[in-house]
Amino acid sequence: MDEPKIEDPIAELITNYHELNSSVIEELDEEPSALEFMRFVARNTPFVVRGAALDWQATRTWSVDYLKAFLGDEPVNVAVTPEGNADAPTPYTSPQDGTTTLVFAKPHEEDQPFSTFLDYLTTQEHTPPDSESSPSKPKEIRYAQTQNDNLRAEYRPLFSAVPPSIPWARIALARDPDAINLWIGNSRSVTALHKDNYENVYVQVAGRKHFVLLPPVCHAAVGERLLRPAVYTRTLKGSATGEDGEGLKLMLEEDGEAVPFATWDPDRPGENATPYSALVQPTRVTLEPGDMLYLPCMWYHKVSQSCSPEGVCIAVNYWYDMDFTGPLYPLSTFVRSVSNQEK
Amino acid sequence: MDEPKIEDPIAELITNYHELNSSVIEELDEEPSALEFMRFVARNTPFVVRGAALDWQATRTWSVDYLKAFLGDEPVNVAVTPEGNADAPTPYTSPQDGTTTLVFAKPHEEDQPFSTFLDYLTTQEHTPPDSESSPSKPKEIRYAQTQNDNLRAEYRPLFSAVPPSIPWARIALARDPDAINLWIGNSRSVTALHKDNYENVYVQVAGRKHFVLLPPVCHAAVGERLLRPAVYTRTLKGSATGEDGEGLKLMLEEDGEAVPFATWDPDRPGENATPYSALVQPTRVTLEPGDMLYLPCMWYHKVSQSCSPEGVCIAVNYWYDMDFTGPLYPLSTFVRSVSNQEK
Repeated sequence: MDEPKIEDPIAELITNYHELNSSVIEELDEEPSALEFMRFVARNTPFVVRGAALDWQATRTWSVDYLKAFLGDEPVNVAVTPEGNADAPTPYTSPQDGTTTLVFAKPHEEDQPFSTFLDYLTTQEHTPPDSESSPSKPKEIRYAQTQNDNLRAEYRPLFSAVPPSIPWARIALARDPDAINLWIGNSRSVTALHKDNYENVYVQVAGRKHFVLLPPVCHAAVGERLLRPAVYTRTLKGSATGEDGEGLKLMLEEDGEAVPFATWDPDRPGENATPYSALVQPTRVTLEPGDMLYLPCMWYHKVSQSCSPEGVCIAVNYWYDMDFTGPLYPLSTFVRSVSNQEK
Repeated sequence: MDEPKIEDPIAELITNYHELNSSVIEELDEEPSALEFMRFVARNTPFVVRGAALDWQATRTWSVDYLKAFLGDEPVNVAVTPEGNADAPTPYTSPQDGTTTLVFAKPHEEDQPFSTFLDYLTTQEHTPPDSESSPSKPKEIRYAQTQNDNLRAEYRPLFSAVPPSIPWARIALARDPDAINLWIGNSRSVTALHKDNYENVYVQVAGRKHFVLLPPVCHAAVGERLLRPAVYTRTLKGSATGEDGEGLKLMLEEDGEAVPFATWDPDRPGENATPYSALVQPTRVTLEPGDMLYLPCMWYHKVSQSCSPEGVCIAVNYWYDMDFTGPLYPLSTFVRSVSNQEK
């Protein structure tokens, strides 16, 4: 006597998950203990602590002028795109045959004096949308988003304004952060839906971040495809001042390895949807200055941002290596393999 | 461009798991803190603490005479089987058509005076195997194995000899045990491979238990089948003294609901194997008196036992409700559904 077969195990998985787990994020009144945090890690479940970083020196002092005073004209790495679409699925039209396909668009990267970069962000942010067609309008989008431990490297002078680690995360996970990253941008940049193999503590410093979160079991819903890599390159009138976004051209990386990447955008649910996308109940949370988010490893997240009155959005996040032992990582790979077999 | 398809996601899952996780159990020198325990819960990974319960009153005092002095002739529930196969897949031959199928064999259950039960266990244990054909040999196998919180119910007078909870488990899981179970048997009883939806702390008091453990990702390897339920019933010369095991007859429960149950035995790997059984690397651990095992929820376990010099095997286990939130439970269901689809 065999078991009755489930019609669609993938649909059952997503539905079961949502029946057992709220899609409303848990809000804590204060930071958790290491043990309390470990319970969330064990459940691979996000939470937000409102105002947990309000007394951080960074949250209290990082105005645009303060930052300029610290870093001045030091060169910083800036990701430059025409649409704020760094590391995002982007339509690409072949100059050979005119066909359009989705590619994985990497930003143009260049060093800019920090002050110039900040001025660009705030000026753009304060430019009314209806003046966008003006020839003087700064078109390209800039974002300091290197995720290479930049707060302990190129932004090192700012590092003392944040804790060197998050105590409850360090104690619970029994490790120091692998990377501490600073993010500086304006409302024009969006981080496309993706996931990381890190336990992530995300801290809002200035402006607001809007997260859309999907648990790892939702793999079949995100429309992962292998995308050819492409990179924006300055070609025409583009310059370091970047007044003309038309100077950015998306170039295929002919020898680049294809990138597996989510193509479904939970904010445009009808596009690039899979048969499973409609089953997903995304978790949405907005971080205000001082708020702290635990984003568990392997959760899909899309991040957009709003600016402070000064016209910037600043955040810091702590990446702790995830634990690859136990069942979660191989099970996530299993979900991906079964989902890809269905296609 | 689609993802390359994995040939066999189930085989990949089991192989990936074993590549990332040792099949040698972790041994701790002392009991963990609540946080240390929670790390194991998060990884759904077993461990053993050697000698952790050596100073428990139960471990120090529970001789056969001591137990008799406490409970005397109080009636206790005893599971009776001809082969020590309570709750186990067992061949059943139909009297109608002579065909033999595997069924789920439940024991005959009856109340016996505690002293009588203990005497039966020790006498049987000390009967040399070569006298088994003797007509006076006690054939049937008896096991006190109710898993209904019996140490706080029918064995209540013994309860004060063990802690009311395991402190690090209680604190970490933020709950009291749902059940505390006492197990008394001899080497003739074996608990067939199965799994429970509980976090389990298992403590050896007298004799030894031999565990074979498989992680939840191994579902496709255990040959789960829907078995018709059957129950042993005393029919012929059988009596409460049970001198004649031939009096036990396996009767189908005609209206009973079929039971999904593992049919593969890791100690007889060639029988009832699935194409995935050979991929499994079981974890084997023997508990000596005073040893403590954390058996994570949903792990398959087969348990056999050896006796103390007195001829009994005694253990106590603490069941804590597992957490059904998070991804592990729906993912385990997913593995089961996909595995059953393959059949």
